[in-house]
Amino acid sequence: MKKILLLPDSFKGTMDSPSICKIMKAAILRHYPDALVESLPVADGGEGSVDSFLQALNGEKVIVRVKGPLFEELDAFYGLVDQGKTAVIEMAACAGLPLMGDRKNPLVTTTYGVGQLILAAAARGVRKIILGLGGSATNDGGCGAAAALGIRFLDQDGKEFVPTGETLDRIDRVDMKQKSVLLDNLTIQAMCDIDNPMYGPMGAAYVFAPQKGADEAGVRKLDAGLRRLAFVIERDLGLQVADLPGSGAAGAMGAGVYAFFGASLDPGIEVVLDAVRFDKIAQGADLILTGEGKIDQQSLGGKAVIGVARRARRLGIPVAAIVGDIGDGIERVYDEGVSGIFSINRVAIDFTLARERSPEDLALTVDNLMRFLKRLAF
Amino acid sequence: MKKILLLPDSFKGTMDSPSICKIMKAAILRHYPDALVESLPVADGGEGSVDSFLQALNGEKVIVRVKGPLFEELDAFYGLVDQGKTAVIEMAACAGLPLMGDRKNPLVTTTYGVGQLILAAAARGVRKIILGLGGSATNDGGCGAAAALGIRFLDQDGKEFVPTGETLDRIDRVDMKQKSVLLDNLTIQAMCDIDNPMYGPMGAAYVFAPQKGADEAGVRKLDAGLRRLAFVIERDLGLQVADLPGSGAAGAMGAGVYAFFGASLDPGIEVVLDAVRFDKIAQGADLILTGEGKIDQQSLGGKAVIGVARRARRLGIPVAAIVGDIGDGIERVYDEGVSGIFSINRVAIDFTLARERSPEDLALTVDNLMRFLKRLAF
Repeated sequence: MKKILLLPDSFKGTMDSPSICKIMKAAILRHYPDALVESLPVADGGEGSVDSFLQALNGEKVIVRVKGPLFEELDAFYGLVDQGKTAVIEMAACAGLPLMGDRKNPLVTTTYGVGQLILAAAARGVRKIILGLGGSATNDGGCGAAAALGIRFLDQDGKEFVPTGETLDRIDRVDMKQKSVLLDNLTIQAMCDIDNPMYGPMGAAYVFAPQKGADEAGVRKLDAGLRRLAFVIERDLGLQVADLPGSGAAGAMGAGVYAFFGASLDPGIEVVLDAVRFDKIAQGADLILTGEGKIDQQSLGGKAVIGVARRARRLGIPVAAIVGDIGDGIERVYDEGVSGIFSINRVAIDFTLARERSPEDLALTVDNLMRFLKRLAF
Repeated sequence: MKKILLLPDSFKGTMDSPSICKIMKAAILRHYPDALVESLPVADGGEGSVDSFLQALNGEKVIVRVKGPLFEELDAFYGLVDQGKTAVIEMAACAGLPLMGDRKNPLVTTTYGVGQLILAAAARGVRKIILGLGGSATNDGGCGAAAALGIRFLDQDGKEFVPTGETLDRIDRVDMKQKSVLLDNLTIQAMCDIDNPMYGPMGAAYVFAPQKGADEAGVRKLDAGLRRLAFVIERDLGLQVADLPGSGAAGAMGAGVYAFFGASLDPGIEVVLDAVRFDKIAQGADLILTGEGKIDQQSLGGKAVIGVARRARRLGIPVAAIVGDIGDGIERVYDEGVSGIFSINRVAIDFTLARERSPEDLALTVDNLMRFLKRLAF
């Protein structure tokens, strides 16, 4: 009996990881009906991450009423896995860009609700929180979330306020004394796949704020605010966060969770592989199918396929990467443990046409691979 | 030590079979340096067929001065293989469309030179002639070739002439009495991959003469001439050729070689597989790589991939088809013996762009497959 693990990343813009797992599994079972197929959808930290973890690990989705990106009340959620010992939160659930509709404005949005979700999960007694940074509508440096957990931001008049993007530059000092004790003994692992620093030309505001609705003046304002926040964090907490890779993630939420909650910023795939206990679950697997929308030299920088391949190589398990496009310079991908790469492109047509048929093309590609392996008596 | 056979058809419009073999072989040897790789380029009956046979079987290229499509003198050639027992002729060598430049006109062109090539090879003592019907500039029903071999065409005045497309309707009778004795005991096997009848809406003139330069009136004239020829053949030789599948091939050369020379009209791939003695050469092979520009339902109709797969299945050898596009409805292709199909498309771009990079993409596809097989301890 074959044991096959499915650990595909989403194909950006075409298929999410759970859908890919479903298609792969059906194709495998058609040719290996007795196979044990473990579907482990890969969360990327953005929208759908909680569902991916719940599908991979089972567990419970907990609904919590928290503040949305404009401080309005909304129902958000977290996932409870690992017998209640771990919570999975996607910040997009209450601070996500889609929640803004056509009112996108990173100057006024908050991550306050994210802090409330953390608080709710902590109150439930979890030991660890996996926090997906992705799809955010915010640029508040995580100050909103911090405020929800008792961290106080004070202006020049000593007046407490909850900073948003446009008021970051009004922070005079930060006070950690009333930080919730629920954060003690709680490990927070943030999923973070970008390396951007907190501010400057490659920072959160300049690179990401325009797509969140900021105009040029807004971007400058946000960047100045983040500089101020970095200064205050360094002075009051003794932490240098400005150039920490990933501190610019999610409107500098990366910097905030690191500084205020002691969170680690880890590549999403590593967080996922740890959470699913990859080394244990992969024991005895005959084959691993992974994949992503495009494999290329950038894939070497900690994307899902390479993360899976590196661990699989140590266990001696072959890895087939099912991908959209195969870019150039992929030689090193094989060195990292990818055994074979199979593109779902099967007719020479432009992506605008190809994306429409990607589910069928994925199904055919995996079907074909399984037929071939079976024929070779794999 | 692995034994791998290469039997790819050309990728129409992008790569010919010998080039594909070369790329495949290099990729295989990179990962299986000890492998025995047999390159057997697949001739399609058109231009390059002689070279493909010579490359697959070794042998000698013999230059012969014969008449070209406009009765001019030119140097053509045939291939001598199988220890001089078999000659391979491509009619394109002396009756091919590219020889016409911008003077294309199927009303006046002749296959006379093809007959001369047959004569030259027969005089050399071959027992069998493989005749590639493809890429022709002619619509003479093979009468030119027949005339070169002593078959006489007479008009109403009993005057002998060499019919071309526009004079087929002047044939009063055909006289086989002076047919060259060199044709006795000579087997002629024509490579013919089309099923068109001799005349009518699906016949040689209507379907193929326009691309050979005929206008509407010319097409009607040619079609009428072929009707006349079919009538004369039936009356004088007692052979019904009009609806024979393939009789319309190469300007009804199919009908001519069948009627005048007793040739068989066989699918090109079957001719190739017989000539290379497939069943013998494939003994002990671990894998066969074949391929074509597009695999789809039409591939079931006797194209190279299916021809190879059917024979390989009987010998129990796995077949990987490396193709350009993978069309729809390919389920039955697997039933016929194809083990796996791998498209060289690796980025979602239009064919106009993809064709430029097809050699590199082919190399990468075979390279990847070999890596994968090696990793699976194949």
